[in-house]
Amino acid sequence: MAETVAAEYDEYLAAGRIWGLVDRERIKKIKFPRVPQEIVKRYLAVTDLTTSVSDVLDSLGIAGAVPASYLSPLAQGQRVVGPAVTIRNLVERKTPTQGYVDKDFIRMSTRDIYYLAEPGDVLVTDTGGDLSISNMGAQSCTVAKSRGLAGSIVYGAVRDAGSIRELGYPVWSKGITPLTGKFRIEAIEMNGPVTLHDVRVEPGDLMVADDSGVCVVPFEHVEHVIDEIESIAAAEEKMASLIVEGAPISELKPLFRKRYSS
Amino acid sequence: MAETVAAEYDEYLAAGRIWGLVDRERIKKIKFPRVPQEIVKRYLAVTDLTTSVSDVLDSLGIAGAVPASYLSPLAQGQRVVGPAVTIRNLVERKTPTQGYVDKDFIRMSTRDIYYLAEPGDVLVTDTGGDLSISNMGAQSCTVAKSRGLAGSIVYGAVRDAGSIRELGYPVWSKGITPLTGKFRIEAIEMNGPVTLHDVRVEPGDLMVADDSGVCVVPFEHVEHVIDEIESIAAAEEKMASLIVEGAPISELKPLFRKRYSS
Amino acid sequence: MAETVAAEYDEYLAAGRIWGLVDRERIKKIKFPRVPQEIVKRYLAVTDLTTSVSDVLDSLGIAGAVPASYLSPLAQGQRVVGPAVTIRNLVERKTPTQGYVDKDFIRMSTRDIYYLAEPGDVLVTDTGGDLSISNMGAQSCTVAKSRGLAGSIVYGAVRDAGSIRELGYPVWSKGITPLTGKFRIEAIEMNGPVTLHDVRVEPGDLMVADDSGVCVVPFEHVEHVIDEIESIAAAEEKMASLIVEGAPISELKPLFRKRYSS
Amino acid sequence: MAETVAAEYDEYLAAGRIWGLVDRERIKKIKFPRVPQEIVKRYLAVTDLTTSVSDVLDSLGIAGAVPASYLSPLAQGQRVVGPAVTIRNLVERKTPTQGYVDKDFIRMSTRDIYYLAEPGDVLVTDTGGDLSISNMGAQSCTVAKSRGLAGSIVYGAVRDAGSIRELGYPVWSKGITPLTGKFRIEAIEMNGPVTLHDVRVEPGDLMVADDSGVCVVPFEHVEHVIDEIESIAAAEEKMASLIVEGAPISELKPLFRKRYSS
Amino acid sequence: MAETVAAEYDEYLAAGRIWGLVDRERIKKIKFPRVPQEIVKRYLAVTDLTTSVSDVLDSLGIAGAVPASYLSPLAQGQRVVGPAVTIRNLVERKTPTQGYVDKDFIRMSTRDIYYLAEPGDVLVTDTGGDLSISNMGAQSCTVAKSRGLAGSIVYGAVRDAGSIRELGYPVWSKGITPLTGKFRIEAIEMNGPVTLHDVRVEPGDLMVADDSGVCVVPFEHVEHVIDEIESIAAAEEKMASLIVEGAPISELKPLFRKRYSS
Amino acid sequence: MAETVAAEYDEYLAAGRIWGLVDRERIKKIKFPRVPQEIVKRYLAVTDLTTSVSDVLDSLGIAGAVPASYLSPLAQGQRVVGPAVTIRNLVERKTPTQGYVDKDFIRMSTRDIYYLAEPGDVLVTDTGGDLSISNMGAQSCTVAKSRGLAGSIVYGAVRDAGSIRELGYPVWSKGITPLTGKFRIEAIEMNGPVTLHDVRVEPGDLMVADDSGVCVVPFEHVEHVIDEIESIAAAEEKMASLIVEGAPISELKPLFRKRYSS
Repeated sequence: MAETVAAEYDEYLAAGRIWGLVDRERIKKIKFPRVPQEIVKRYLAVTDLTTSVSDVLDSLGIAGAVPASYLSPLAQGQRVVGPAVTIRNLVERKTPTQGYVDKDFIRMSTRDIYYLAEPGDVLVTDTGGDLSISNMGAQSCTVAKSRGLAGSIVYGAVRDAGSIRELGYPVWSKGITPLTGKFRIEAIEMNGPVTLHDVRVEPGDLMVADDSGVCVVPFEHVEHVIDEIESIAAAEEKMASLIVEGAPISELKPLFRKRYSS
Repeated sequence: MAETVAAEYDEYLAAGRIWGLVDRERIKKIKFPRVPQEIVKRYLAVTDLTTSVSDVLDSLGIAGAVPASYLSPLAQGQRVVGPAVTIRNLVERKTPTQGYVDKDFIRMSTRDIYYLAEPGDVLVTDTGGDLSISNMGAQSCTVAKSRGLAGSIVYGAVRDAGSIRELGYPVWSKGITPLTGKFRIEAIEMNGPVTLHDVRVEPGDLMVADDSGVCVVPFEHVEHVIDEIESIAAAEEKMASLIVEGAPISELKPLFRKRYSS
Repeated sequence: MAETVAAEYDEYLAAGRIWGLVDRERIKKIKFPRVPQEIVKRYLAVTDLTTSVSDVLDSLGIAGAVPASYLSPLAQGQRVVGPAVTIRNLVERKTPTQGYVDKDFIRMSTRDIYYLAEPGDVLVTDTGGDLSISNMGAQSCTVAKSRGLAGSIVYGAVRDAGSIRELGYPVWSKGITPLTGKFRIEAIEMNGPVTLHDVRVEPGDLMVADDSGVCVVPFEHVEHVIDEIESIAAAEEKMASLIVEGAPISELKPLFRKRYSS
Repeated sequence: MAETVAAEYDEYLAAGRIWGLVDRERIKKIKFPRVPQEIVKRYLAVTDLTTSVSDVLDSLGIAGAVPASYLSPLAQGQRVVGPAVTIRNLVERKTPTQGYVDKDFIRMSTRDIYYLAEPGDVLVTDTGGDLSISNMGAQSCTVAKSRGLAGSIVYGAVRDAGSIRELGYPVWSKGITPLTGKFRIEAIEMNGPVTLHDVRVEPGDLMVADDSGVCVVPFEHVEHVIDEIESIAAAEEKMASLIVEGAPISELKPLFRKRYSS
Repeated sequence: MAETVAAEYDEYLAAGRIWGLVDRERIKKIKFPRVPQEIVKRYLAVTDLTTSVSDVLDSLGIAGAVPASYLSPLAQGQRVVGPAVTIRNLVERKTPTQGYVDKDFIRMSTRDIYYLAEPGDVLVTDTGGDLSISNMGAQSCTVAKSRGLAGSIVYGAVRDAGSIRELGYPVWSKGITPLTGKFRIEAIEMNGPVTLHDVRVEPGDLMVADDSGVCVVPFEHVEHVIDEIESIAAAEEKMASLIVEGAPISELKPLFRKRYSS
Repeated sequence: MAETVAAEYDEYLAAGRIWGLVDRERIKKIKFPRVPQEIVKRYLAVTDLTTSVSDVLDSLGIAGAVPASYLSPLAQGQRVVGPAVTIRNLVERKTPTQGYVDKDFIRMSTRDIYYLAEPGDVLVTDTGGDLSISNMGAQSCTVAKSRGLAGSIVYGAVRDAGSIRELGYPVWSKGITPLTGKFRIEAIEMNGPVTLHDVRVEPGDLMVADDSGVCVVPFEHVEHVIDEIESIAAAEEKMASLIVEGAPISELKPLFRKRYSS
């Protein structure tokens, strides 16, 4: 653990924000810059959120979109925007049965990250896209919500699907399962870089998710991306109203071309 | 392009129905016979639509059903019946980043087909079942709806899932994604034969879709299929009411056998 | 067929509970002990049903959970608990077209099992996880409901998805399809052992299903499992209320540890 | 167990052909008619074995071919023809770790079937296409070879791949693995009907396998199929030599058409 | 069919190069420029062929490589370089059984393309990546070889795997199968654009294939790509010999950096 | 980076064993205990290597085997035993095209690990099982061989398949590809914990691989596992010779039972 993080750890411990279930060394970052709430709000005001973001990422040559085909919302109509905090999980070496037999200590943990996180953060967990092992359930999501997290994006599975939907806490995941992660997975790293399907996430990146999937905006591009989106949106809206009014092709075409050539 | 199509193209151009984003030669058919609306209505009156159609196609030795396991509705409870207009898309050679760098022209197009289509038509696009690249989004569906299309069936992915659901325009697709098709796919052919999973579609075939999946009724069998369905339905209904009343097996069995042996 | 089963078959035949579509020899069990309704009710009272069950099965070294990733509910919010009755289907040798040409007899059957079942039973069908061939449709589910079955769990596909949802009969399946099983599959065994994804089911096992997936509780463990769940639930609830109240980690941690170490 | 089989079981027991690892009731057939060796030899004389067989099965409307895409030979150039003996395996309920903890008895068994089989038979095992659990290893194949079996076709995985190749015993399987089936799978039925990918096998059917995949010829069609193959082969050979000689299309075409129109 | 192609068709017909199994309109191109043999030879001289080509395509922003993970050689050690001729196949509407019942005409054809092709051409067939239906067998490959084709690349399956290996005709495919394409697929287009996994092929593109997979070099880049490869190769060779000699990092590093920065 | 590792880094730098392509902080371990060569030799003497290891891991409740179904040898008959050194790769944020446009530095590196490794080590790289991006090619394997590495196990793809086979350097991988990892993946960590399919590897664990797949023996169990294997082997051999001699069941059965009950 770098010296800065060590100092921050002690500070958070004193402030009652350390559960201590995960070794200190596994926490890579504690404090890091967050996207300001004003910017988050500008993102949340965009109608077709992830598709708008994806288009600008395309223009930057950044691979930042995960289709809902691979990472789908637990409930339709959910939308979330917020800075990433991350957990990387690895499978345990022992079978879960052996873990029970040996009365092993549980080595997965999402609680720790919730107390390290700031309100508005989005938890991103990476369990390699496994479809069977739960990364979190309803109780975990209750803690997340009570700590002010904006939502969770899970490259793996979750459980208690019904209760999480009732709770209204937004979750995207690759799978749904009854099988606990206890004795199956271990939190190997917190706030390090992780992968969602084939997209990379660094802590502090802006996570953007809706019914079409999930986008990751690198921290350094967050402002540029929303600026671009807003300028495109005006043109799109004008186009949309013309279409609804049944404008002739001759009128639509110049706008259509312009939109994409800029 | 065959001579007839060339003449039709000029006629449609004069009528303001040609966007011109797609080369003339790529349009295989413009005018072709459509199933009459009376017949479409008879199909729409069938309760378990695709399963009824699939049973009659089975009896004809025609492979015409795609399970919702592979091609699922964007919203539950959607139903659509209408003649197919088709687009076949191919991936671009350049990566999307190179396309941006070179400021290439966009070569995908659904707009063109909407203006070639007749009200009540169903757009079928074939992008080889790709799960990541969008074939259409909310704005495209708004155009489709304004042009009177009945729905879209996409062997590929779509985006703006939330907005399309709100719009109430029925769509079936293999995947959902934020990633645009611009700079990723090219409309290589319109109104040519295409494939949905492992079923073939010719323009003019009757597309029938609901929560169980999608069926393709070859144009020449459209009337026979609905005739058969209606004659089976009567027997089914009688059976259903007997079951609900709790009729004994001895009474049910003769009907049960009869239903399938005919 | 064992002698006991033979006698039971005759008894059921006399009672009007034998359809006779399936050969006698294919029915492995007719009467077998069922979990009492009081216990079923205790299970139904559990909030996060399958996840609670899965945790206790884990502690017993039993592989008994199938994630919703592989076996998903037809409608959200469904829950079912009841003893398993089973059908194992095999593909037909002839293509369905040849079956029609030869006017073959239909060899699939779910009707038979509905009349052999007791009210509250859950039908489990195993067609090897096939995504295209229907194991049952709306009419079959209507019969199931009228006979008092609690629900169906299908390792394969179902059809008439819309009508089944309207009927309110709970179904979990691997796929949804328009393609009938008639001329495609044959009921090779009733009330024998079957497989759901990678979990084994014996007739009489307690099936437990909700939005997170499906669990199979071996008959001999049914009481132990619910006893354990109820004792864990009390602790979980206390924890939940402390979290919502925002209790400090120092207060939460001892409870957290205790919960899992016991 | 049917009376005949019971009598045969006793006969085999007396003859030292019963291992007794599998319950009597699980053995569905012991004696059944085998395809004569003269016919097996005629099949083995065919150059492109499975493709020739598949073509005739097509003409009979029988689904009898499994592509090597799904069921591949352990070694290139293997060919096997012989009557099927079958095992159906089910996963165990306990995890393998729990099986070890409880010192359970092993419930998988291939040894039993080798002693029930006749020389020239082909073992077909069905473990639902699982890719991780071994159905047999080198020692099992050594027993098979010593008992005169012609080969094994495994809808599941095998282990000791290297040793089996050295042994020269022909095996087709879906996967290769180090993981034993002991404590993971149970032999639930012997000489009952099983499935290979999506093709059905009954004991006594003629199994035909080569580098292109596996075919199942229903017992009743075994003679018809080879008769057809031999009559087609003559025409094919003439065609082939004309092609090699570079005969003009005008000479080739009539033969080409004839071949398929008959 | 464009006028030029019509004229070329008549010319080829007169020259005995038209089988006539495929409608004239389905042939998109007959004569088109081929990469000169000197250039083909330069490609064939490259040791790690597809990886060298892929690196230069990367630098051009062209998606032109298909991993052997998806398209694998029938035999190890095969290498092929040559201009593409293409076939696009679509599934038939009728089931193969119905095709037999109705004694339909066969609508697949590879023979036609072999006679349209020039010596050294590589046949590329696109059947959407299907794993079960054969695109060609040993006899077809015999014709191909006799007509001088360099090899075949099949986005689909092939049959007679053993005989094709013996023939020594190089083939890459997605699958291997016994099931004929007759009555299953139809040749819908010849010498039009097709797809291999997610890479596009136009007739005349240079196909390059070896044990690592398949690359498609767009016709217009063929010379640039080989020029680049040859200039990189010299640097690579020097590096390789230094490594084998065990040169220290200090000596290797400058070369290593230089190699990639250029 | 922990203090010990920092000191070791400086020591290795002085010794000319640091390439410096990877940031210091990304190297988690440099010196760690290796399994002695005598023990490696005992493993190499075992005939059915991975299956023997897997059986003993099973008895310890350790999940340590990856089937060749998921991780297959580049060449048949390869065998490798040695301590793991590890690399974890993450996808780059930029598309490879953008990486070229921006003339970015290459961030993948296997060279660094070869110089950190000891003779006899086995490189394990984890790229999440990706099938398209190469983790290493022939030149990299040449370096590995010259540095004395025993082999490589790649949860991802490799390229230059033909040259690697010729080189005789043993490699297991999930895929084969022409596509370079340069500009596609970044070496995010060296000698940290990684995953192979669903099995965890720590640096220093003993990697054991053959035609049946790959096993990971945790460092602390290495001696116990080989002791167990050797004691089982004697019994197996006796059994094998009895089978070949055709010993009667009565003689075989007691040995058979004994083998597994112990």
